[in-house]
Amino acid sequence: MTQPFHPPQRTLMGPGPSDVNPRILEAMSRPTIGHLDPAFVGMMDEMKALLRYAFRTENALTMPISAPGSAGMESCFVNLVEPGDKVVVCQNGVFGGRMKENVERAGGVAIMQQDPWGRAVDPQKLEETLKTNPDAKIVAFVHAETSTGAQSDAETLCKIAHDHGCLTIVDAVTSLGGSPLEVDKWGIDAIYSGSQKCLSCTPGLSPVSFNDAALKKVRDRTTAVQSWFLDLNLVMGYWDGGGKRAYHHTAPINALYGMHEALVVLEEEGVESCWTRHQNNHLALRAGIEAMGLEFVVPESERLPQLNAVTIPEGVDDAAVRSTLLNHYSLEIGAGLGDLAGKVWRIGQMGYASNEKNILNCLAALDAVLSSMGAPIHQGEAVAAARAAYR
Amino acid sequence: MTQPFHPPQRTLMGPGPSDVNPRILEAMSRPTIGHLDPAFVGMMDEMKALLRYAFRTENALTMPISAPGSAGMESCFVNLVEPGDKVVVCQNGVFGGRMKENVERAGGVAIMQQDPWGRAVDPQKLEETLKTNPDAKIVAFVHAETSTGAQSDAETLCKIAHDHGCLTIVDAVTSLGGSPLEVDKWGIDAIYSGSQKCLSCTPGLSPVSFNDAALKKVRDRTTAVQSWFLDLNLVMGYWDGGGKRAYHHTAPINALYGMHEALVVLEEEGVESCWTRHQNNHLALRAGIEAMGLEFVVPESERLPQLNAVTIPEGVDDAAVRSTLLNHYSLEIGAGLGDLAGKVWRIGQMGYASNEKNILNCLAALDAVLSSMGAPIHQGEAVAAARAAYR
Repeated sequence: MTQPFHPPQRTLMGPGPSDVNPRILEAMSRPTIGHLDPAFVGMMDEMKALLRYAFRTENALTMPISAPGSAGMESCFVNLVEPGDKVVVCQNGVFGGRMKENVERAGGVAIMQQDPWGRAVDPQKLEETLKTNPDAKIVAFVHAETSTGAQSDAETLCKIAHDHGCLTIVDAVTSLGGSPLEVDKWGIDAIYSGSQKCLSCTPGLSPVSFNDAALKKVRDRTTAVQSWFLDLNLVMGYWDGGGKRAYHHTAPINALYGMHEALVVLEEEGVESCWTRHQNNHLALRAGIEAMGLEFVVPESERLPQLNAVTIPEGVDDAAVRSTLLNHYSLEIGAGLGDLAGKVWRIGQMGYASNEKNILNCLAALDAVLSSMGAPIHQGEAVAAARAAYR
Repeated sequence: MTQPFHPPQRTLMGPGPSDVNPRILEAMSRPTIGHLDPAFVGMMDEMKALLRYAFRTENALTMPISAPGSAGMESCFVNLVEPGDKVVVCQNGVFGGRMKENVERAGGVAIMQQDPWGRAVDPQKLEETLKTNPDAKIVAFVHAETSTGAQSDAETLCKIAHDHGCLTIVDAVTSLGGSPLEVDKWGIDAIYSGSQKCLSCTPGLSPVSFNDAALKKVRDRTTAVQSWFLDLNLVMGYWDGGGKRAYHHTAPINALYGMHEALVVLEEEGVESCWTRHQNNHLALRAGIEAMGLEFVVPESERLPQLNAVTIPEGVDDAAVRSTLLNHYSLEIGAGLGDLAGKVWRIGQMGYASNEKNILNCLAALDAVLSSMGAPIHQGEAVAAARAAYR
């Protein structure tokens, strides 16, 4: 007979999932009710208002997709891209490549703009790309590249896209709740995020928001959205607070309890305070990493505070370091992804996991493991440097 | 400030979600770990084995899709249907209609076979449909129609489909764990289910299983699967136990803890004992419903024990009955769906909710509410009749 599964207690400082606030885990274990229960419908309305608060938007269509961030990405592309549509995809990491896949599977034509991995998307290049592709209809880019830790200037990129008559699709999986994000002020037309990063929820939900211009393109489509499950025309019938809720699919009730609680926690702290906390903990982490003599992949001015890609020193066994951290310290940091596999570690400090204790413990553990392996670092200096940064 | 959401404690006897076993709720609140953590990967392997047990299959590709049953349905159609493929869809309720949507959005041609709502799919008609459509490639039908409570003879339908060289896609959202289902013995090629019915999990996951013939069609495709998120060629890279796990999307960790626990519970009881329990509780419910003078929509020989559609008596206010049950008895029963909206109630007794206490309480509450409204029923007889059925 199979035994119940009791997971180890980890500290999650990789690219996500990040540590889940115990309040959220408790909320998820509350009694399940029906997806059309008036009590549940009231909770859904609160959640939409809370997500608007988190995204800094007034968009009526702001809700969680009932599946992970990859499905949130797909919901943006399958609804907005019609066969033959030209979509400029600015790629500076793994997730831009996934956007390309989405464009092409939706029947669109992807115009790829490549920027170096570890750098922000170059607005000047976007300007040029759009000049040579005047028939482009959409610009898509990743605000916070989880594979590299680079953040792009979404406001400037959206402005350029709009100047050329394009809608924008923005990946904010890692930025929502962790660093400044202003959907309305920056003019983002469609955006998706994930539950398991700076919102400190369990993975499995993808908050999205669409403004009126994006919704108009969805409503004006002449072809059906290729996905029934993600067709916003249908999903809205369930999530729209305007009238009677029509059954579309059965909502993931308890996961939504968790997201509601996560957003209540965010509102309690204040989203701007939350951004500041991530930034302060980043500064301490940076001080420790630099004191060790390690280097960041991304220049400071383009770096996400919540996701730090650090170059693996010459001769150090990537997998051995990560597995020692996991097995001896129960600490998870992330491996490199795509072109950066084996070359970097990704140290996340997201949401509930972004706190002084974690920063100091992570630095202490990394210092100990690298020292024990004879890695070329300045031993024993990281923690003191980080402590000093907090004073 | 928004307050935490504390749901009422309901008894869920609608079409699902059904009551969740407290063991499962507790399991879901265990600490989140990474989706590539060796401990998690071990749990995934156990889960695949447990799902094979539940589905009665040896299929290697047996796993949960990271989204609700509607996405499980879509995963079957977008992977197996290529543009131009002819798919016979046997419709006898709401979910056959959803299958048609899926076929068409995947670029296939849906040949609809209509059977009366509330009846099983007619095998004789399928034989004829396939004779007149010798180029059909797939037959799709709903084993357990959640909208009506009818179960079809999946074994016979699969045999006919295979005799005509077709693969089969079977909807088992409501049958898995609640009534006999034999994926290998019946020759089902691709099947999907849901977590929130007879497995007593929270909604949000969709167990699927594909046999070698189905997988061959996926692998031999000449066109890309239109959904990146549901592309089995990619999903398998993460779930396949054969080699290294490749990151595809971030798995819904805690929801999977819940499903693992649900399957451990199923194994402890034994899947055949579980079927018998549903049948015995159905017989008691039937005795009570008939003692009241109410009628079932589906003939007994085609009726699902776990989902009972009961005709609303003439002159009775559907919505008032359901809201009184919800508000006074905290009991949820289901409304009619599609063509049966306003005409039937759907009384589910699924998984953890399938027990004597619930059956008696449901009958007592329904008796009380209908009596108080002056409905034409035999008052005060239902509970005694159900009790007698248990002896």
